[in-house]
Amino acid sequence: MPRSKEAAQANLENLHRIFTVPEAPDSTLGSIDRDIAGNVAGFLQTHVVALERKLIEIEQDFSNARVPEEPTFVSDYTEFLTDKLVAQSVNTASPAFIGHMTSAFPYFMLPLSRIMIALNQNLVKVETSKAFTPMERQVLAMIHRLVYDRDDDFYGRWMHDPRHALGAFCSGGTVANITALWAARNRLCGPSGEFRGIAREGLAKALRHLDCAGLAVLVSRRAHYSLGKAVDLLGIGRDNLVAVETDENSRIDLQRLREESRRLQGEGMRVLALVGIGGTTETGNVDPLEAMADFAQELNCHFHVDSAWGGPTLFSRTYRPLLRGIERADSVTIDAHKQLYVPMGAGMVVFKDPETLASIEHHAAYIIRRGSKDLGSHTLEGSRPGMAMLVHAGLSIIGRKGYELLMDGGIERARHFAGMIENHPDFELVTVPELNILTYRYVPAWLQQDLARADAETARRINARLDRIIETIQKRQRAAGNSFVSRTRLALPRYRNEPIIVFRSVLANPLTTDEILASVLEEQVAIAAQPDLAAEFAEIMAALG
Amino acid sequence: MPRSKEAAQANLENLHRIFTVPEAPDSTLGSIDRDIAGNVAGFLQTHVVALERKLIEIEQDFSNARVPEEPTFVSDYTEFLTDKLVAQSVNTASPAFIGHMTSAFPYFMLPLSRIMIALNQNLVKVETSKAFTPMERQVLAMIHRLVYDRDDDFYGRWMHDPRHALGAFCSGGTVANITALWAARNRLCGPSGEFRGIAREGLAKALRHLDCAGLAVLVSRRAHYSLGKAVDLLGIGRDNLVAVETDENSRIDLQRLREESRRLQGEGMRVLALVGIGGTTETGNVDPLEAMADFAQELNCHFHVDSAWGGPTLFSRTYRPLLRGIERADSVTIDAHKQLYVPMGAGMVVFKDPETLASIEHHAAYIIRRGSKDLGSHTLEGSRPGMAMLVHAGLSIIGRKGYELLMDGGIERARHFAGMIENHPDFELVTVPELNILTYRYVPAWLQQDLARADAETARRINARLDRIIETIQKRQRAAGNSFVSRTRLALPRYRNEPIIVFRSVLANPLTTDEILASVLEEQVAIAAQPDLAAEFAEIMAALG
Repeated sequence: MPRSKEAAQANLENLHRIFTVPEAPDSTLGSIDRDIAGNVAGFLQTHVVALERKLIEIEQDFSNARVPEEPTFVSDYTEFLTDKLVAQSVNTASPAFIGHMTSAFPYFMLPLSRIMIALNQNLVKVETSKAFTPMERQVLAMIHRLVYDRDDDFYGRWMHDPRHALGAFCSGGTVANITALWAARNRLCGPSGEFRGIAREGLAKALRHLDCAGLAVLVSRRAHYSLGKAVDLLGIGRDNLVAVETDENSRIDLQRLREESRRLQGEGMRVLALVGIGGTTETGNVDPLEAMADFAQELNCHFHVDSAWGGPTLFSRTYRPLLRGIERADSVTIDAHKQLYVPMGAGMVVFKDPETLASIEHHAAYIIRRGSKDLGSHTLEGSRPGMAMLVHAGLSIIGRKGYELLMDGGIERARHFAGMIENHPDFELVTVPELNILTYRYVPAWLQQDLARADAETARRINARLDRIIETIQKRQRAAGNSFVSRTRLALPRYRNEPIIVFRSVLANPLTTDEILASVLEEQVAIAAQPDLAAEFAEIMAALG
Repeated sequence: MPRSKEAAQANLENLHRIFTVPEAPDSTLGSIDRDIAGNVAGFLQTHVVALERKLIEIEQDFSNARVPEEPTFVSDYTEFLTDKLVAQSVNTASPAFIGHMTSAFPYFMLPLSRIMIALNQNLVKVETSKAFTPMERQVLAMIHRLVYDRDDDFYGRWMHDPRHALGAFCSGGTVANITALWAARNRLCGPSGEFRGIAREGLAKALRHLDCAGLAVLVSRRAHYSLGKAVDLLGIGRDNLVAVETDENSRIDLQRLREESRRLQGEGMRVLALVGIGGTTETGNVDPLEAMADFAQELNCHFHVDSAWGGPTLFSRTYRPLLRGIERADSVTIDAHKQLYVPMGAGMVVFKDPETLASIEHHAAYIIRRGSKDLGSHTLEGSRPGMAMLVHAGLSIIGRKGYELLMDGGIERARHFAGMIENHPDFELVTVPELNILTYRYVPAWLQQDLARADAETARRINARLDRIIETIQKRQRAAGNSFVSRTRLALPRYRNEPIIVFRSVLANPLTTDEILASVLEEQVAIAAQPDLAAEFAEIMAALG
């Protein structure tokens, strides 16, 4: 064999090897794999470096835009990965990471994920998913039942019906919300008479057919930003996503909702949908869903509830009533990678009426043929992994009672934390937790008193300075790497509707203890006492005289 | 402690345990996990039952819509899972599974997936992804460079620029295609003068501003069905996705393209985009991208290339010229879970101009703030897993030369298979492979001769009967479970543009051997000889006289 042919042959053999030979248990990757399997928490503590490296430094390790010409040994790559990527990740599973909605998940999810990935099913069609298709349909039915509680006959009739779907499994809540509004839009503008429907003729002709100036979606100002994307994508326009004022408890103001709706109608607009929020992202509050359902009925529009976060609260006998009215929604979003404790990449939207999703139905000749049970005919996405298996596992293994404990635990932990904040002289609870999210800020006791007495202009000046301090505290706490709360900017009636920056805490990890919560506050107090921030406070004090 | 309190305490302890105690290595799940790690292929062969069970029977195991009240032991659940789900999955990794685009992936992807899942990063924002954000930006830059081959300065300037993104990482090619057309639409209808842009004002006002009757997208009739979803979602309407006729090689007919475009302009329509296909889903053909780029320039419209399948062919020095002109596209879709051999759930779209994605930019107060490097500001999806890590691993470990071998191997295997089909007296090659996809059908030698002589009406009658037979053969082969080809319906000039049903074969698995390909054909011959099908052929022969 000539030299080059020999080399090509060797390359081919190497290539076959990477597809057929597993990592040896004592290889770098094999041993990391085993470490994680045996002790994720320990692995994360050992490998995820707490101290924040500047992003600009991290970028140096990921700055070559050229795909390497030659192959690399898996062991060399794994070392690079542990040093440069794993070490510089965020320990989202840490019980002191209480700033975002990404938290720990149960151990069994890890080996089950390996099964899911090894099977590499594609849920777009039965030919590449087989049993995964009925399983996903069952998961959607379980979530549907959690929300709408229909009887066995209903689910026997619809769950596996090839021409219908009770919902859509998505990569996340954003696609779920988009799917809901897409279906609502296409249903409102469905075929009638000469008009062949918006799906075929497009939005402009649909508006002419409906004889209106435009479509509008009404939601509180606490809406998730995915709704803005949805109305942009759907051609409705962000101006027509009307952000209604909220009350002191961050719930939609029903009076203002009526006013906005009247205004829109006066302008010749058609209200496509009301969106109620079942756990706002920033404050965890729940809109008055029952009253919104009444109003949606009055307007004869679609009623969507975005309970990406709060939906699983329905598992709790105690707190389910907080979401009263959700069962009247035409569609409901629930994220599994949030409070169903499934790894990232799993959202769902369910529809009250099994006919609704027909408005976005589509087919193709080589897959998702008419009459097939292929789930791809009712989803925004095409090829999709078998994430529903992990939701199925969570629902089966944890059970309703298990999720109830998780939900109750989170809400009670948040109330407890709120109490700790209120009892601390130097903190101010900004929003009271209704579910398991709260916001607060650091305001020294003396300044709280001054603020209470201050006129509007003085308060504005103080709050502007406080904003910068709160932001600095949040960033330094994050950089120190022991604990993490997020921050956001809220406009609340209590603060004259002028936006202020607050700490935001999400209490979803069942392993978060009182000690951890206490230490989060202590650390914030300590940061506030650092010389530059202490000097800022001294200046504020001096300015107040 | 009273009884109920004791029980509640025990429940809480159980709950903590599932979050903190890993599966014992000798537990059911632990041992499956180890089996898969040590030998996926063996695990799949042992556990995935080849013989097809009827879907309606499988559904029985997934028909309870009620979430179980009580928790289940992980071991019990795992047994259910292996019996009812794993056993009834599709062995997509089998080298005899040559019917769809889902195939095997290298072994190292499995332990790396475990790392990715254990880290549970959320790419929407740096606060929950840290090093994963620069890594994903690097992956997008690598794919950008693969397509556009800009210099180091370009990537140094744009790769990590917080206000820009070279592309979007998506759950799959459908979201990638939607993102491309969304950006194109919003760019065409951007703010100008009084008009504040389609993102804010919506599609109807944008059309008025552009002074046109509607937007249109032109693509060949071989387009992936995701483009239909895209124009529906974007409010453009499916009627305005114009499916242009193809030539004998399933490539867009440039003459017809010009005619359609003239017709649209005559109707006052504005062409938003031309879409070229870099590997059609059904036949693997590549549109004349260079000529389409010229024409897009002439029309002054967006030029998108959907190379979800064929994109990685760019790694091959030999076959890269097949995609000539792709570097002139404004946007390009490439799926990683197809020919980058990454597990399901990874697609990408890259944009020639780093400014394009600004048209869909969005922000929120609590995350993806203005000026942050958060990738969430330029994606359709919100929360997203760290799948980019697996793409990064593939590109690094396999390298350009490794992917070249994979691409060359697939194309050569397809040519070889085409030769086998042509040399077989009882098969007819319907579409010649350009990349690694081909279609063919079973037509006994004598019938091929008759068909060649038949008039249009007779040919139509014969083809209708052949269609049913081909469909039956495909279903029986799938049900037998030894091998799998898919089927589709194609209209080709050679067949008077009347749709016929064909077998479709996708040669992406590097472990597929000549022996396997030969046995696929043998099995089809054997099925065709089964009494009922033999009788069908006898009837056809009799009818022909």
